[in-house]
Amino acid sequence: MEQVILEDVLAQIRAALEANDLTSASAIIESLRPADQADIFWELDEDEQAVLLPKLNPADAADIFEELYDEDAAEIAVQLPLTTLVRIVNEMEPDEAADLLDDLDPRQADAILAQLEAAHQIKPLIAYPDDTAGGLMTSSFIALQRRMTCAQAIAAIRMWRPDEETIYYLFVTDRLKRLAGVVNLRQLIVAAPSTPVAKIMESDVVYVSADTDQEDCADLMQRYDLLALPVVDENMHLLGVITIDDLVDVIQAEASEDIQRLGGSEPLDRAYLDTSIFAITRKRIGWLFLLFGTATLTAGVMDAYQSILGSVVVLSIFIPMLIGTGGNAGSQTTSTIIRALAVGDVEWVDIWRVWLHELSVGAVMGVLMGLAALTLVYFWIADLSVAVTVAASIFGIVVWSTSAGSLLPLIAHRINIDPTVISGPAMSTLVDATGLFIYFNIARFVLNL
Amino acid sequence: MEQVILEDVLAQIRAALEANDLTSASAIIESLRPADQADIFWELDEDEQAVLLPKLNPADAADIFEELYDEDAAEIAVQLPLTTLVRIVNEMEPDEAADLLDDLDPRQADAILAQLEAAHQIKPLIAYPDDTAGGLMTSSFIALQRRMTCAQAIAAIRMWRPDEETIYYLFVTDRLKRLAGVVNLRQLIVAAPSTPVAKIMESDVVYVSADTDQEDCADLMQRYDLLALPVVDENMHLLGVITIDDLVDVIQAEASEDIQRLGGSEPLDRAYLDTSIFAITRKRIGWLFLLFGTATLTAGVMDAYQSILGSVVVLSIFIPMLIGTGGNAGSQTTSTIIRALAVGDVEWVDIWRVWLHELSVGAVMGVLMGLAALTLVYFWIADLSVAVTVAASIFGIVVWSTSAGSLLPLIAHRINIDPTVISGPAMSTLVDATGLFIYFNIARFVLNL
Repeated sequence: MEQVILEDVLAQIRAALEANDLTSASAIIESLRPADQADIFWELDEDEQAVLLPKLNPADAADIFEELYDEDAAEIAVQLPLTTLVRIVNEMEPDEAADLLDDLDPRQADAILAQLEAAHQIKPLIAYPDDTAGGLMTSSFIALQRRMTCAQAIAAIRMWRPDEETIYYLFVTDRLKRLAGVVNLRQLIVAAPSTPVAKIMESDVVYVSADTDQEDCADLMQRYDLLALPVVDENMHLLGVITIDDLVDVIQAEASEDIQRLGGSEPLDRAYLDTSIFAITRKRIGWLFLLFGTATLTAGVMDAYQSILGSVVVLSIFIPMLIGTGGNAGSQTTSTIIRALAVGDVEWVDIWRVWLHELSVGAVMGVLMGLAALTLVYFWIADLSVAVTVAASIFGIVVWSTSAGSLLPLIAHRINIDPTVISGPAMSTLVDATGLFIYFNIARFVLNL
Repeated sequence: MEQVILEDVLAQIRAALEANDLTSASAIIESLRPADQADIFWELDEDEQAVLLPKLNPADAADIFEELYDEDAAEIAVQLPLTTLVRIVNEMEPDEAADLLDDLDPRQADAILAQLEAAHQIKPLIAYPDDTAGGLMTSSFIALQRRMTCAQAIAAIRMWRPDEETIYYLFVTDRLKRLAGVVNLRQLIVAAPSTPVAKIMESDVVYVSADTDQEDCADLMQRYDLLALPVVDENMHLLGVITIDDLVDVIQAEASEDIQRLGGSEPLDRAYLDTSIFAITRKRIGWLFLLFGTATLTAGVMDAYQSILGSVVVLSIFIPMLIGTGGNAGSQTTSTIIRALAVGDVEWVDIWRVWLHELSVGAVMGVLMGLAALTLVYFWIADLSVAVTVAASIFGIVVWSTSAGSLLPLIAHRINIDPTVISGPAMSTLVDATGLFIYFNIARFVLNL
């Protein structure tokens, strides 16, 4: 692969545009791979995009639309004349076209649909939510019939439009058009030409219904190493096919969501730098307020135990360190359990094993951290009873946050709340208040207050 | 797909084993899909595994080994007699076999290699680190020659062992065996049989070298929607091929690593419940100690400003709330930027744009949170100057942690440290100390201390 330096290409296109040489500018774009085309195109100014897009080969323009974030594509589409847009959407994969139309104003979408060649294929796809099997699948696929021979099957594939999404699994239907099996292209080639498809097909097919969540589709495809997953209705009629490239995007998108939620923020809908300050704030401020609200709990605990702080002022010095350690221990646990849930290593039935596991880990870490705290505090302020108080509290806090941190994600998962939502910062905030409570009560006991 | 209830299957196998009916037990396992086989097998006790494994069809045993976590597979392998193990490894994909041998004792690995059919294919793969292109690729692939016709190419594919990893992209080499192009199976079928392969192949191929990091391979395959990625040496000789199913596993593994690191823990090497308490503790305690060490900074700041806390005791009530909010705002930013870096939405050159973006978001959120704090504190303790102190501090802390939180991941990425490592808890701990510093100085100013 020649390494394409996108900055250089962008400069060349800009130079061509300034010289009003639209032919060269579009030739440069058309020579790139779709993902690079989309990156370059998105870097252009709006008026540059508006000038260039109608000049591009509609197939290339369609590739660009498919590669852009959905919201970005919709933003460009609104500004195009209807005829240009129809020409481009005609070249898009049905599933991508449906996503785009769904993001447009319904009236604009209807106007486009009325003029599309494959409107009958695209229309049913618009109804499905983006994050379900129905929203991911393409309705443009070739279904073989049970009674075909391999030679007939290969002939049918030859007839099929070659620029469709590449499907290497070919699904086989019976006379009632119900899903009956699957063969792959290699099997068709390797078999004797006169062999019936029914004889070489695998009839135990993994399939999903149109309302299956995209995360479950991704899990199945990953678990069974599938390149394509068929989507059927309640009568087993084949509705569409999800291909592996869509799956890879789903896995990445789900990981993005998890990581952003773990950080205590709603996931962004588009590329970071293209998301406005207002939109980012809106994704974060709700959680920040909520956590601030629950943090009043910590202030409440502090307030209730004022007298202890008043009589042994030095105790306050270690408060941030104590609750910080509790938060850290808790988030170590939650992130591990959340991931184990996501990849299927643990589930609800394992809750007691998980809890016992974390309780033991917490006890070991609590002892180690407690010894560290004992040493540190004793050498710092040379007061053994304060050192014992801090050390015992660290032990209690680490055990408590580790074990509580293991239960929360499992409980959330059980009651169908995304575990990432209640973890991370939310968990820390809860642990803060309980950690203070532990600290003050140990202080009261050890220091006889 | 018939939904297989793994618990039921496990019970059936156990019943067969108890009745000493090894034939039924292995027949049940052999009827499952590889991922299910591995799950079931791993649930069996060690002695059940030892009895069953030699009875299984070697191809099924090989599938099970391929699906297990590397460490788990190695653990079972050590206990098997050499002949059984050789029979199984002979059936494994070369890349998976190499991974397994690499995890075994070198002497055991050599003994197996000496008896393997495909030792010449597997040996070179062992040298490559698991997380590079060389470690991911399979050395068992079919390469077409430029001058073949499509009919000859299809004949060559027919001759090829059909149970190899399914490769739908066929790479084409020139007379010096250098990578020259790629065709897919569909193109071969659709073209006239006498067409030379060189005529229909795409000669602009995306390729990597054997030492390319697995994350970069995954990025390329995802970006360009590739089902297979060729690996070449410095003379462009084709060494192997990475297939999409390996890529999907890489993406999941990298997401797992990121999420666990964000939580402040080193990633686990195997399934959670199979990881011992000692191993989990080892993955976490280092970070917990380190963060505890940096947290002494917060104790230092508290100590230095004791006099302020002494004169206005009520200020201490709000400390956990203030540093909690700072930590939350900071982790919202770091997790967003880390993910934007991972998916390529931002890079080092964007640092000032990112910083400005976050500074603005921080300012907006700071004002809103400040107003909330002003109201809350004023109604709580009815002291306007304390309320103003807390509100101004919240504003300062949110702006500071949001903007600092945006720079840290970018700087880490720039100096080749995994940004997830220094984020999350590490970030919070730093923000805690600086947040206290901001609070006490604002208090000194507003309250004239």
